[in-house]
Amino acid sequence: MAKIGVILAGSGVFDGSEIHEAVLTLLNIVKKGSEYLCIAPDIEQMHTINHAVKDVSEGETRNVLIESARIARGDIKDLKDVSMSEIDGVIFPGGFGAAKNLCDFAVNGANCTINPHIKELILNMYSDGKPIGALCIAPVVIAKAFEGSNVKPVLTIGNDKQTAEAIEMMGGIHTECTPDNIVIDEENKIVSTPAYMLASNIAEFENGIERLVAEVLSMV
Amino acid sequence: MAKIGVILAGSGVFDGSEIHEAVLTLLNIVKKGSEYLCIAPDIEQMHTINHAVKDVSEGETRNVLIESARIARGDIKDLKDVSMSEIDGVIFPGGFGAAKNLCDFAVNGANCTINPHIKELILNMYSDGKPIGALCIAPVVIAKAFEGSNVKPVLTIGNDKQTAEAIEMMGGIHTECTPDNIVIDEENKIVSTPAYMLASNIAEFENGIERLVAEVLSMV
Repeated sequence: MAKIGVILAGSGVFDGSEIHEAVLTLLNIVKKGSEYLCIAPDIEQMHTINHAVKDVSEGETRNVLIESARIARGDIKDLKDVSMSEIDGVIFPGGFGAAKNLCDFAVNGANCTINPHIKELILNMYSDGKPIGALCIAPVVIAKAFEGSNVKPVLTIGNDKQTAEAIEMMGGIHTECTPDNIVIDEENKIVSTPAYMLASNIAEFENGIERLVAEVLSMV
Repeated sequence: MAKIGVILAGSGVFDGSEIHEAVLTLLNIVKKGSEYLCIAPDIEQMHTINHAVKDVSEGETRNVLIESARIARGDIKDLKDVSMSEIDGVIFPGGFGAAKNLCDFAVNGANCTINPHIKELILNMYSDGKPIGALCIAPVVIAKAFEGSNVKPVLTIGNDKQTAEAIEMMGGIHTECTPDNIVIDEENKIVSTPAYMLASNIAEFENGIERLVAEVLSMV
Protein backbone atom coordinates (compact mmCIF):
# COMPACT_ATOMS: atom_id res chain seq x y z
CA MET A 1 0.00 0.00 0.00
CA ALA A 2 1.46 3.33 -1.07
CA LYS A 3 1.91 6.03 1.58
CA ILE A 4 1.68 9.62 0.39
CA GLY A 5 2.99 12.48 2.50
CA VAL A 6 0.54 15.39 2.52
CA ILE A 7 2.55 18.51 3.31
CA LEU A 8 0.47 20.97 5.31
CA ALA A 9 1.25 24.61 6.04
CA GLY A 10 -1.32 25.54 8.68
CA SER A 11 -5.13 25.37 8.56
CA GLY A 12 -7.05 28.05 6.69
CA VAL A 13 -6.73 29.57 3.24
CA PHE A 14 -5.34 32.99 4.23
CA ASP A 15 -2.48 31.94 6.52
CA GLY A 16 -2.29 28.16 6.16
CA SER A 17 -3.29 25.25 3.95
CA GLU A 18 -6.53 25.64 2.02
CA ILE A 19 -8.84 23.35 3.97
CA HIS A 20 -11.10 22.16 1.12
CA GLU A 21 -8.13 21.25 -1.08
CA ALA A 22 -6.38 19.43 1.77
CA VAL A 23 -9.47 17.41 2.72
CA LEU A 24 -10.23 16.35 -0.87
CA THR A 25 -6.59 15.27 -1.20
CA LEU A 26 -6.87 13.08 1.90
CA LEU A 27 -10.22 11.67 0.74
CA ASN A 28 -8.93 10.67 -2.66
CA ILE A 29 -5.77 9.04 -1.31
CA VAL A 30 -7.87 6.82 0.98
CA LYS A 31 -10.54 6.12 -1.66
CA LYS A 32 -7.87 4.80 -4.00
CA GLY A 33 -6.70 2.30 -1.39
CA SER A 34 -3.60 4.18 -0.27
CA GLU A 35 -2.58 5.81 2.98
CA TYR A 36 -1.69 9.39 3.80
CA LEU A 37 0.81 10.74 6.28
CA CYS A 38 0.17 14.37 7.22
CA ILE A 39 3.43 16.26 7.62
CA ALA A 40 4.22 19.87 8.57
CA PRO A 41 7.26 21.84 9.67
CA ASP A 42 7.45 22.87 13.34
CA ILE A 43 7.82 26.61 12.66
CA GLU A 44 5.88 29.78 13.40
CA GLN A 45 3.38 30.97 10.79
CA MET A 46 4.26 34.19 8.95
CA HIS A 47 1.24 35.69 10.71
CA THR A 48 -2.29 34.85 11.82
CA ILE A 49 -5.21 36.03 9.71
CA ASN A 50 -8.63 36.51 11.30
CA HIS A 51 -10.56 34.75 8.53
CA ALA A 52 -13.88 36.37 9.48
CA VAL A 53 -12.58 39.87 8.67
CA LYS A 54 -9.68 38.80 6.40
CA ASP A 55 -7.13 40.88 8.26
CA VAL A 56 -4.00 40.24 10.30
CA SER A 57 -4.61 39.36 13.93
CA GLU A 58 -1.90 41.55 15.46
CA GLY A 59 0.28 39.99 18.15
CA GLU A 60 -1.15 36.50 17.68
CA THR A 61 1.39 33.81 16.83
CA ARG A 62 0.48 30.32 15.69
CA ASN A 63 2.60 27.29 14.87
CA VAL A 64 2.37 25.59 11.47
CA LEU A 65 2.59 22.04 12.84
CA ILE A 66 0.03 22.64 15.60
CA GLU A 67 -2.51 24.31 13.29
CA SER A 68 -1.98 21.74 10.53
CA ALA A 69 -2.85 19.05 13.08
CA ARG A 70 -6.46 20.30 12.92
CA ILE A 71 -6.79 19.10 9.33
CA ALA A 72 -4.97 15.88 10.28
CA ARG A 73 -7.22 15.17 13.30
CA GLY A 74 -4.10 15.08 15.45
CA ASP A 75 -2.25 12.46 13.42
CA ILE A 76 0.63 14.49 12.07
CA LYS A 77 4.39 14.17 11.91
CA ASP A 78 6.98 16.89 12.28
CA LEU A 79 8.82 17.23 8.95
CA LYS A 80 12.19 16.85 10.67
CA ASP A 81 11.18 13.41 12.00
CA VAL A 82 10.07 12.05 8.61
CA SER A 83 12.36 9.51 6.98
CA MET A 84 12.31 9.60 3.19
CA SER A 85 11.94 5.80 3.17
CA GLU A 86 8.54 5.95 4.85
CA ILE A 87 6.75 7.85 2.08
CA ASP A 88 6.29 6.95 -1.59
CA GLY A 89 5.46 10.44 -2.81
CA VAL A 90 4.22 13.82 -1.60
CA ILE A 91 1.32 16.17 -2.33
CA PHE A 92 1.26 19.87 -1.42
CA PRO A 93 -2.24 21.37 -1.02
CA GLY A 94 -2.52 25.09 -1.72
CA GLY A 95 -3.61 28.06 0.36
CA PHE A 96 -1.51 31.08 1.30
CA GLY A 97 0.33 28.94 3.85
CA ALA A 98 2.27 27.31 1.00
CA ALA A 99 3.37 30.79 -0.13
CA LYS A 100 3.84 32.28 3.35
CA ASN A 101 5.12 29.47 5.57
CA LEU A 102 6.83 26.95 3.26
CA CYS A 103 8.37 29.79 1.27
CA ASP A 104 7.68 33.53 1.27
CA PHE A 105 6.48 33.82 -2.33
CA ALA A 106 3.38 35.77 -1.18
CA VAL A 107 5.71 38.61 -0.12
CA ASN A 108 8.75 38.29 -2.34
CA GLY A 109 7.53 36.58 -5.53
CA ALA A 110 10.23 34.91 -7.61
CA ASN A 111 12.87 36.30 -5.23
CA CYS A 112 11.40 34.37 -2.32
CA THR A 113 13.32 32.08 -0.01
CA ILE A 114 12.18 28.53 0.66
CA ASN A 115 12.27 26.67 3.95
CA PRO A 116 15.45 24.54 3.65
CA HIS A 117 13.77 21.37 4.95
CA ILE A 118 10.94 21.71 2.44
CA LYS A 119 13.49 22.19 -0.34
CA GLU A 120 15.41 19.12 0.84
CA LEU A 121 12.19 17.07 0.92
CA ILE A 122 11.33 18.02 -2.67
CA LEU A 123 14.85 17.35 -3.98
CA ASN A 124 14.97 14.01 -2.15
CA MET A 125 11.64 12.94 -3.65
CA TYR A 126 12.95 13.84 -7.09
CA SER A 127 16.28 12.06 -6.68
CA ASP A 128 14.50 8.96 -5.32
CA GLY A 129 12.19 8.90 -8.36
CA LYS A 130 9.10 9.52 -6.21
CA PRO A 131 6.16 11.62 -7.48
CA ILE A 132 5.33 15.15 -6.34
CA GLY A 133 1.85 16.68 -6.55
CA ALA A 134 1.09 20.38 -6.06
CA LEU A 135 -2.27 22.19 -5.91
CA CYS A 136 -3.28 25.81 -6.35
CA ILE A 137 -0.37 28.15 -5.48
CA ALA A 138 1.88 25.30 -4.19
CA PRO A 139 3.63 24.84 -7.57
CA VAL A 140 5.64 27.99 -6.75
CA VAL A 141 7.25 26.04 -3.90
CA ILE A 142 8.23 23.27 -6.34
CA ALA A 143 9.65 25.77 -8.85
CA LYS A 144 11.68 27.46 -6.11
CA ALA A 145 13.08 24.15 -4.87
CA PHE A 146 14.49 23.32 -8.33
CA GLU A 147 15.71 26.84 -9.11
CA GLY A 148 19.32 26.79 -10.22
CA SER A 149 19.29 23.05 -10.91
CA ASN A 150 19.10 21.22 -14.24
CA VAL A 151 15.48 20.30 -13.58
CA LYS A 152 12.89 22.48 -15.32
CA PRO A 153 9.58 21.38 -13.80
CA VAL A 154 6.45 21.72 -15.92
CA LEU A 155 3.76 23.21 -13.68
CA THR A 156 0.37 24.92 -13.65
CA ILE A 157 -1.23 27.47 -11.38
CA GLY A 158 -4.15 27.92 -13.79
CA ASN A 159 -3.84 31.05 -15.90
CA ASP A 160 -2.71 33.88 -13.60
CA LYS A 161 -0.17 35.74 -15.72
CA GLN A 162 1.91 37.22 -12.91
CA THR A 163 2.29 33.96 -11.01
CA ALA A 164 3.01 32.03 -14.23
CA GLU A 165 5.76 34.53 -15.07
CA ALA A 166 7.26 34.14 -11.61
CA ILE A 167 7.35 30.37 -12.07
CA GLU A 168 9.23 30.84 -15.33
CA MET A 169 11.63 33.32 -13.67
CA MET A 170 12.46 30.59 -11.16
CA GLY A 171 13.22 28.16 -13.98
CA GLY A 172 9.91 26.32 -14.28
CA ILE A 173 7.78 25.91 -17.39
CA HIS A 174 4.19 27.07 -16.98
CA THR A 175 1.24 25.46 -18.77
CA GLU A 176 -2.30 26.80 -18.54
CA CYS A 177 -4.89 24.41 -17.11
CA THR A 178 -8.52 24.38 -15.94
CA PRO A 179 -9.49 23.31 -12.39
CA ASP A 180 -11.02 20.01 -13.54
CA ASN A 181 -7.76 19.01 -15.18
CA ILE A 182 -4.08 18.41 -14.34
CA VAL A 183 -0.68 19.11 -15.85
CA ILE A 184 1.65 16.12 -15.90
CA ASP A 185 5.44 16.43 -16.05
CA GLU A 186 6.18 12.79 -16.88
CA GLU A 187 9.93 13.19 -16.94
CA ASN A 188 10.18 14.71 -13.48
CA LYS A 189 7.14 12.94 -11.97
CA ILE A 190 5.45 16.20 -11.02
CA VAL A 191 1.68 16.73 -11.25
CA SER A 192 -0.19 19.99 -10.63
CA THR A 193 -3.73 21.38 -10.77
CA PRO A 194 -5.09 24.92 -10.25
CA ALA A 195 -7.86 24.22 -7.67
CA TYR A 196 -8.85 27.51 -5.98
CA MET A 197 -6.30 29.53 -8.02
CA LEU A 198 -9.01 29.40 -10.68
CA ALA A 199 -12.11 27.63 -9.35
CA SER A 200 -14.97 29.65 -7.93
CA ASN A 201 -16.29 26.80 -5.79
CA ILE A 202 -15.25 23.44 -4.34
CA ALA A 203 -17.19 21.34 -6.87
CA GLU A 204 -15.27 22.86 -9.77
CA PHE A 205 -11.96 21.30 -8.75
CA GLU A 206 -13.12 18.04 -7.18
CA ASN A 207 -12.26 16.18 -10.41
CA GLY A 208 -8.92 17.97 -10.71
CA ILE A 209 -7.82 16.73 -7.29
CA GLU A 210 -9.13 13.23 -7.98
CA ARG A 211 -7.12 13.12 -11.20
CA LEU A 212 -4.01 14.52 -9.53
CA VAL A 213 -4.11 11.94 -6.76
CA ALA A 214 -4.68 9.12 -9.27
CA GLU A 215 -1.75 10.30 -11.38
CA VAL A 216 0.58 10.66 -8.38
CA LEU A 217 -0.33 7.14 -7.22
CA SER A 218 0.23 5.72 -10.71
CA MET A 219 3.79 7.08 -10.59
CA VAL A 220 4.66 5.35 -7.30
CA MET B 1 -31.87 27.29 -5.83
CA ALA B 2 -32.04 26.01 -2.26
CA LYS B 3 -29.75 27.62 0.32
CA ILE B 4 -28.66 25.43 3.21
CA GLY B 5 -27.21 26.90 6.38
CA VAL B 6 -24.16 24.95 7.53
CA ILE B 7 -23.81 25.54 11.26
CA LEU B 8 -20.16 25.56 12.28
CA ALA B 9 -18.72 25.41 15.79
CA GLY B 10 -15.05 26.22 15.27
CA SER B 11 -12.44 24.50 13.09
CA GLY B 12 -10.88 21.26 14.27
CA VAL B 13 -12.30 18.01 15.64
CA PHE B 14 -11.26 18.42 19.28
CA ASP B 15 -12.56 21.94 20.00
CA GLY B 16 -14.55 22.88 16.88
CA SER B 17 -16.29 21.46 13.84
CA GLU B 18 -14.83 18.28 12.38
CA ILE B 19 -13.13 19.62 9.26
CA HIS B 20 -13.55 16.58 6.98
CA GLU B 21 -17.27 16.31 7.74
CA ALA B 22 -17.80 20.03 7.22
CA VAL B 23 -15.95 20.10 3.89
CA LEU B 24 -17.80 17.07 2.48
CA THR B 25 -21.07 18.71 3.51
CA LEU B 26 -20.17 21.88 1.59
CA LEU B 27 -18.99 19.86 -1.42
CA ASN B 28 -22.19 17.86 -1.67
CA ILE B 29 -24.46 20.89 -1.32
CA VAL B 30 -22.69 22.58 -4.25
CA LYS B 31 -22.49 19.38 -6.34
CA LYS B 32 -26.25 18.98 -6.09
CA GLY B 33 -26.79 22.46 -7.49
CA SER B 34 -27.60 24.20 -4.23
CA GLU B 35 -25.87 26.90 -2.22
CA TYR B 36 -24.50 26.89 1.30
CA LEU B 37 -24.39 29.66 3.85
CA CYS B 38 -21.82 29.06 6.60
CA ILE B 39 -23.13 30.27 9.95
CA ALA B 40 -21.60 30.31 13.43
CA PRO B 41 -22.34 31.97 16.76
CA ASP B 42 -20.06 34.84 17.82
CA ILE B 43 -19.04 33.29 21.17
CA GLU B 44 -15.85 32.10 22.83
CA GLN B 45 -14.92 28.43 22.43
CA MET B 46 -15.14 26.27 25.56
CA HIS B 47 -11.35 25.98 25.25
CA THR B 48 -8.58 25.61 22.70
CA ILE B 49 -7.08 22.18 22.08
CA ASN B 50 -3.55 21.87 20.70
CA HIS B 51 -4.42 19.22 18.10
CA ALA B 52 -0.80 18.07 17.72
CA VAL B 53 -0.63 16.89 21.34
CA LYS B 54 -4.40 16.57 21.93
CA ASP B 55 -4.32 18.62 25.10
CA VAL B 56 -5.77 21.93 26.29
CA SER B 57 -3.78 25.00 25.33
CA GLU B 58 -3.96 26.81 28.66
CA GLY B 59 -4.78 30.50 28.57
CA GLU B 60 -5.55 30.54 24.85
CA THR B 61 -9.01 31.78 23.91
CA ARG B 62 -10.49 31.48 20.45
CA ASN B 63 -13.80 32.65 19.01
CA VAL B 64 -16.20 30.19 17.36
CA LEU B 65 -17.19 32.54 14.52
CA ILE B 66 -13.60 33.55 13.72
CA GLU B 67 -12.27 29.99 13.72
CA SER B 68 -15.26 28.66 11.75
CA ALA B 69 -14.45 31.25 9.08
CA ARG B 70 -11.37 29.15 8.22
CA ILE B 71 -13.59 26.34 6.93
CA ALA B 72 -15.82 28.93 5.21
CA ARG B 73 -12.89 30.70 3.48
CA GLY B 74 -14.02 33.93 5.13
CA ASP B 75 -17.60 33.81 3.85
CA ILE B 76 -19.50 33.33 7.08
CA LYS B 77 -22.44 34.94 8.82
CA ASP B 78 -22.91 35.57 12.51
CA LEU B 79 -25.88 33.46 13.68
CA LYS B 80 -27.55 36.51 15.21
CA ASP B 81 -27.63 38.24 11.80
CA VAL B 82 -29.25 35.31 9.96
CA SER B 83 -32.87 35.72 8.99
CA MET B 84 -34.83 32.48 8.94
CA SER B 85 -36.24 33.45 5.55
CA GLU B 86 -32.82 33.33 3.89
CA ILE B 87 -32.19 29.61 4.47
CA ASP B 88 -34.21 26.60 3.37
CA GLY B 89 -32.73 24.13 5.82
CA VAL B 90 -29.70 23.57 8.05
CA ILE B 91 -26.97 20.96 8.47
CA PHE B 92 -24.82 20.57 11.58
CA PRO B 93 -21.41 18.90 10.98
CA GLY B 94 -19.95 17.06 13.96
CA GLY B 95 -16.75 17.42 15.94
CA PHE B 96 -16.43 18.22 19.64
CA GLY B 97 -17.34 21.84 18.88
CA ALA B 98 -20.98 20.78 18.48
CA ALA B 99 -20.84 19.26 21.97
CA LYS B 100 -18.66 21.94 23.57
CA ASN B 101 -19.63 25.24 21.94
CA LEU B 102 -23.22 24.82 20.66
CA CYS B 103 -24.13 22.95 23.85
CA ASP B 104 -21.98 21.49 26.63
CA PHE B 105 -22.92 17.84 26.15
CA ALA B 106 -19.23 16.84 26.16
CA VAL B 107 -19.07 17.89 29.82
CA ASN B 108 -22.61 17.46 31.12
CA GLY B 109 -24.19 14.76 28.94
CA ALA B 110 -27.99 14.69 28.91
CA ASN B 111 -28.00 17.45 31.56
CA CYS B 112 -26.23 19.84 29.22
CA THR B 113 -27.37 23.34 28.37
CA ILE B 114 -27.78 24.49 24.80
CA ASN B 115 -26.90 27.89 23.36
CA PRO B 116 -30.28 29.67 23.24
CA HIS B 117 -29.77 31.02 19.71
CA ILE B 118 -28.92 27.54 18.42
CA LYS B 119 -32.04 26.17 20.11
CA GLU B 120 -34.14 28.95 18.58
CA LEU B 121 -32.68 28.22 15.12
CA ILE B 122 -33.56 24.52 15.37
CA LEU B 123 -37.09 25.17 16.65
CA ASN B 124 -37.67 27.78 13.95
CA MET B 125 -36.54 25.38 11.23
CA TYR B 126 -38.94 22.78 12.59
CA SER B 127 -41.90 25.14 12.87
CA ASP B 128 -41.24 26.45 9.34
CA GLY B 129 -41.22 22.88 7.97
CA LYS B 130 -37.58 23.15 6.91
CA PRO B 131 -35.23 20.14 7.08
CA ILE B 132 -32.46 19.66 9.64
CA GLY B 133 -29.39 17.49 9.06
CA ALA B 134 -26.96 16.42 11.79
CA LEU B 135 -23.66 14.51 11.53
CA CYS B 136 -21.58 12.58 14.04
CA ILE B 137 -22.18 13.90 17.60
CA ALA B 138 -24.36 16.84 16.42
CA PRO B 139 -27.64 14.90 16.88
CA VAL B 140 -27.27 15.51 20.63
CA VAL B 141 -27.76 19.23 19.92
CA ILE B 142 -30.99 18.45 18.06
CA ALA B 143 -32.26 16.20 20.85
CA LYS B 144 -31.51 18.88 23.43
CA ALA B 145 -33.32 21.56 21.41
CA PHE B 146 -36.54 19.52 21.36
CA GLU B 147 -36.29 18.31 24.98
CA GLY B 148 -39.52 18.97 26.85
CA SER B 149 -41.51 19.53 23.65
CA ASN B 150 -43.94 17.20 21.92
CA VAL B 151 -41.39 16.44 19.21
CA LYS B 152 -39.50 13.16 19.63
CA PRO B 153 -36.79 13.33 16.97
CA VAL B 154 -35.51 10.05 15.54
CA LEU B 155 -31.72 10.30 15.41
CA THR B 156 -28.50 8.32 15.03
CA ILE B 157 -25.02 8.75 16.39
CA GLY B 158 -24.00 5.29 15.16
CA ASN B 159 -23.98 2.68 17.91
CA ASP B 160 -22.31 4.27 20.97
CA LYS B 161 -24.46 3.01 23.84
CA GLN B 162 -23.82 5.86 26.29
CA THR B 163 -24.51 8.63 23.78
CA ALA B 164 -27.60 6.81 22.44
CA GLU B 165 -28.95 6.55 26.00
CA ALA B 166 -28.33 10.25 26.57
CA ILE B 167 -30.30 11.06 23.42
CA GLU B 168 -33.21 8.99 24.73
CA MET B 169 -32.97 10.68 28.15
CA MET B 170 -33.40 14.00 26.35
CA GLY B 171 -36.54 12.69 24.64
CA GLY B 172 -35.11 11.55 21.31
CA ILE B 173 -35.42 8.12 19.75
CA HIS B 174 -32.10 6.53 18.82
CA THR B 175 -31.64 4.22 15.82
CA GLU B 176 -28.37 2.44 15.06
CA CYS B 177 -26.79 3.22 11.71
CA THR B 178 -23.55 2.63 9.78
CA PRO B 179 -21.42 5.53 8.45
CA ASP B 180 -22.39 4.88 4.81
CA ASN B 181 -26.06 5.25 5.66
CA ILE B 182 -28.53 7.75 7.15
CA VAL B 183 -31.49 7.76 9.51
CA ILE B 184 -34.51 9.66 8.23
CA ASP B 185 -37.16 11.12 10.51
CA GLU B 186 -39.75 11.84 7.81
CA GLU B 187 -42.31 13.32 10.17
CA ASN B 188 -39.97 15.89 11.67
CA LYS B 189 -37.76 16.37 8.60
CA ILE B 190 -34.59 15.43 10.47
CA VAL B 191 -31.76 13.42 8.88
CA SER B 192 -28.65 12.12 10.66
CA THR B 193 -25.56 10.02 9.92
CA PRO B 194 -22.75 8.78 12.21
CA ALA B 195 -19.67 9.96 10.22
CA TYR B 196 -16.61 9.93 12.50
CA MET B 197 -18.65 8.72 15.50
CA LEU B 198 -18.18 5.33 13.89
CA ALA B 199 -16.02 5.62 10.77
CA SER B 200 -12.31 4.94 10.98
CA ASN B 201 -11.45 7.03 7.93
CA ILE B 202 -12.90 9.75 5.70
CA ALA B 203 -13.78 7.41 2.82
CA GLU B 204 -16.05 5.31 5.04
CA PHE B 205 -18.58 8.13 5.52
CA GLU B 206 -18.34 9.94 2.19
CA ASN B 207 -21.50 8.15 1.00
CA GLY B 208 -23.29 8.83 4.28
CA ILE B 209 -22.80 12.57 3.92
CA GLU B 210 -23.75 12.48 0.25
CA ARG B 211 -26.99 10.69 1.13
CA LEU B 212 -27.71 13.04 4.03
CA VAL B 213 -27.30 16.13 1.88
CA ALA B 214 -29.46 14.61 -0.88
CA GLU B 215 -32.19 13.76 1.62
CA VAL B 216 -32.12 17.20 3.25
CA LEU B 217 -32.36 18.87 -0.16
CA SER B 218 -35.27 16.60 -1.15
CA MET B 219 -37.18 17.87 1.90
CA VAL B 220 -36.79 21.55 0.99
